[in-house]
Amino acid sequence: MNDKVAVFEKKISDAIGKVFDGEQPLTLFDPAKYILSIGGKRLRPLLTLMAADLFGKEADEALNPALAIEIFHNFSLLHDDLMDKADMRRGKPTVHKKWNANSAILSGDAMVIEAYQHIVKVPAPLLPEILQIFSSAAMQICKGQQYDMDFEIRMDVSESEYLEMIRLKTAVLIGCALKIGAVIAGATPPNADSLYAYGINIGLAFQLKDDLLDVYGDPQTFGKKIGGDILCNKKTFLLIKALKHSDKTQRAVLEHWLSVDDFDPAAKIGIVKNIYDELNLKSITEDLIEKYYLASLDCLQSVNVADNRKKELIDLSENLMHREK
Amino acid sequence: MNDKVAVFEKKISDAIGKVFDGEQPLTLFDPAKYILSIGGKRLRPLLTLMAADLFGKEADEALNPALAIEIFHNFSLLHDDLMDKADMRRGKPTVHKKWNANSAILSGDAMVIEAYQHIVKVPAPLLPEILQIFSSAAMQICKGQQYDMDFEIRMDVSESEYLEMIRLKTAVLIGCALKIGAVIAGATPPNADSLYAYGINIGLAFQLKDDLLDVYGDPQTFGKKIGGDILCNKKTFLLIKALKHSDKTQRAVLEHWLSVDDFDPAAKIGIVKNIYDELNLKSITEDLIEKYYLASLDCLQSVNVADNRKKELIDLSENLMHREK
Repeated sequence: MNDKVAVFEKKISDAIGKVFDGEQPLTLFDPAKYILSIGGKRLRPLLTLMAADLFGKEADEALNPALAIEIFHNFSLLHDDLMDKADMRRGKPTVHKKWNANSAILSGDAMVIEAYQHIVKVPAPLLPEILQIFSSAAMQICKGQQYDMDFEIRMDVSESEYLEMIRLKTAVLIGCALKIGAVIAGATPPNADSLYAYGINIGLAFQLKDDLLDVYGDPQTFGKKIGGDILCNKKTFLLIKALKHSDKTQRAVLEHWLSVDDFDPAAKIGIVKNIYDELNLKSITEDLIEKYYLASLDCLQSVNVADNRKKELIDLSENLMHREK
Repeated sequence: MNDKVAVFEKKISDAIGKVFDGEQPLTLFDPAKYILSIGGKRLRPLLTLMAADLFGKEADEALNPALAIEIFHNFSLLHDDLMDKADMRRGKPTVHKKWNANSAILSGDAMVIEAYQHIVKVPAPLLPEILQIFSSAAMQICKGQQYDMDFEIRMDVSESEYLEMIRLKTAVLIGCALKIGAVIAGATPPNADSLYAYGINIGLAFQLKDDLLDVYGDPQTFGKKIGGDILCNKKTFLLIKALKHSDKTQRAVLEHWLSVDDFDPAAKIGIVKNIYDELNLKSITEDLIEKYYLASLDCLQSVNVADNRKKELIDLSENLMHREK
């Protein structure tokens, strides 16, 4: 990681650590501080600062909207974990487990509003555009989460429906993070839009990589247990493709394992993975990731700034593509 | 109700009916449209339009922030009902009963964002101030709801803590509705602040009247069952005063009825109401309502516009004070 990026990460980490400091009541703000404290990659705020830097603006000028985006992202994780009944997040108990469902609901609500409290701090002439970009992304994320939940009870989700869902749920906020950094830095609309498109493609590749690592990740480096998505019947890209392309026998096996409540986890993971292998889904998914990765580079290419300024973003994209966790 | 107010109410009702029209997925937006459709007084958006009108601005210019406030208010009802496990709202099943908890969470989240989508439509030069007023009120409402939940498990809530809680949970949004209307109309800061203070006092009186009607309302006109707050041990102004001023015998009776799970509803209401009567809480509460009502008129008095322009607001306040439901 180069020095500039390390400086940006330090700025973000310091600022995130101060969000909600001194706010009362603690029953409302402790759960919010907790989810913000347990980390994650801080990818989105980093992208906002890098986008501002790409167009020659000091990172500090983009820090408030960067925080807004990270706070909103963590709000969405908080409410999603509650809706998904997830017990753990990043190796720690989720908010509704550590506190309770009501704390998760209301602290999450307060985080959405806090995110907007950081948006309002952008320079007044830029506020209408940035507020619009941010709110539009926020609404799309809600839609993406709803589609994700709707897909749980459907067996006929198509590939294009799935890709649209992950675009809404994951890619849009990455595009938004980049575009707001660009707007803060006074980028031209075509440049800001190209950077947004870069983010959408990176976001799609990023989520597909997540789906892939759940099955084909290296247990030594992955950080989570392999096969978690398989165990909870999550409609990932691989499962959707498998349901679509399986023959009669494979389909019957998949449907059996999707319907049983009581099973040996290792057996379920092994058998489902075996079908994925038979259908060649590892390389099909890798090809699609590569397609979106290359598309992202095309979008970045069309951003009209000197190539040497793009190095950090290209390095970051490569790291995301080659990550093993 | 005079003609002008009826016109404002029609504008609000028509506009609320169109919120989320044509939006997909319906699984996300139907619950939101439902809670918006089951009505209520539309008091807050009406106050926004009346405030704009007070300073000579067309009501239409204030319609977007008025909608934002009504959408946010209904979001807060939606999430509060879920947190309070309330089955009914305005005589209809609550969203988490008609759909489920996840629908209530996510549709509520989408409503917060939709509220901001209406705020962003205000004239750009006014956006920073209006966004700040709105977000500040929104955060205070979350704090008020948290205090309300925290009070459920406390037996030592003081009168001042209670009044601060209802200021945050109820009065602030009424003040915000009025102040945003004033700002839209270009009112001077002292005028906008006086109107906000008017709203805070009206809001406090309004909530205390709610607490009073639950016990002393006329069952024929009240619309809800009398004693609902008593049955669910809600820490109303009357219960807090009763816990504070009861003698040893009364306190023991109160604590008994607050702790039993299995009881005859009519008996509980009758016995608790009897203690309230012994402690003269009806007239103590009425006196406090009158105090806030008079304070609200003082604040309105200090708004520097011709007295005849204030008639509708004074009439509305009087209606709120003398309402029986």
